[in-house]
Amino acid sequence: MTSTTERGTVNGVDVDTLFATIDAVRSQPELAQFRFRALNEWVSGTHSLGRFPGFYGAGQEHLHAVPGAGATVIAADHPAVLVGKDNGPTPAELLLNALASCLMAGLGNIAAARGVELSGVTCRVEGDIDLRGILGIDSSVRNGFSDIRVVFEVEGDGDAEQLAALVAQSQARSAVFDVLTNGTAVTVEVAR
Amino acid sequence: MTSTTERGTVNGVDVDTLFATIDAVRSQPELAQFRFRALNEWVSGTHSLGRFPGFYGAGQEHLHAVPGAGATVIAADHPAVLVGKDNGPTPAELLLNALASCLMAGLGNIAAARGVELSGVTCRVEGDIDLRGILGIDSSVRNGFSDIRVVFEVEGDGDAEQLAALVAQSQARSAVFDVLTNGTAVTVEVAR
Repeated sequence: MTSTTERGTVNGVDVDTLFATIDAVRSQPELAQFRFRALNEWVSGTHSLGRFPGFYGAGQEHLHAVPGAGATVIAADHPAVLVGKDNGPTPAELLLNALASCLMAGLGNIAAARGVELSGVTCRVEGDIDLRGILGIDSSVRNGFSDIRVVFEVEGDGDAEQLAALVAQSQARSAVFDVLTNGTAVTVEVAR
Repeated sequence: MTSTTERGTVNGVDVDTLFATIDAVRSQPELAQFRFRALNEWVSGTHSLGRFPGFYGAGQEHLHAVPGAGATVIAADHPAVLVGKDNGPTPAELLLNALASCLMAGLGNIAAARGVELSGVTCRVEGDIDLRGILGIDSSVRNGFSDIRVVFEVEGDGDAEQLAALVAQSQARSAVFDVLTNGTAVTVEVAR
């Protein structure tokens, strides 16, 4: 769990530990097997609350920190124009933010690994959706987004090309980007 | 904007307004064109904050309610075992909750439309991921989830078959389920 070069902390990332972690996983691939979870409870109408009970990874179960991820409760709802109460973002917006936060986390790590000091990063995501799909009006219209667009603004000590390369590498290594662009197997069942 | 049968409010859903909305969209398909957005800001390391600045739909721009979706700030981070600070759920967990909340919102509406009174619904989602992908250790390993499993527990005034049918119909009309299973086009760019 040691790296050959001491790189310290960059952008809040302990770069030595990051590289040591990658080395540890390289030598013990079973440590890379993770299982993430979410628990969502219905409140009323389209309003629900999501919580994060913990995850398995690196060979063991983990509880999230409190305060922090372990105390997080995320409300979701539909807005009034869709006959909801707007108690929280729509699931569609939560999906867009999941994508943004994944690209952002990757960018933070990659910038640190490359020694690029960041001073500010924003990521705007928007997605187009024709609701005739989910409303059951036109079966030729898909239920989900037809198109998602992500725009980054990155400020830091690199030149424009270096900063853009951080975004490109983050995209190339993003779990959520992969799932959204390539799809994955999802099974849904009802417990009896 | 009226329906022929008065069905009142079921499970917190104004069913008459729900059907009137569907009828309105059927007669004016342009009302179905929505654009959802998320705005994510980097804090430090893998920690980011997501906000929801509003959306376009039904022919106009909408701001979200405050308190409610318009005041929502969602922290995301990596946990300590992945060299983060655990300030919020991982983006991967946020993705799983986006799926759960979408299926849950659909279920709430569908139950109301069918006159099924719900007394409690939970949705557990878990996803398996081999982090050798995002860590750049093995290029044959995908970045995202290999497999996502959703398990519902539904309590309400229907029999087991009726309650299971709510889940099946929600899956059939879920925007997030569609995107996760079928994928969609995502473009990522950097503003100059």
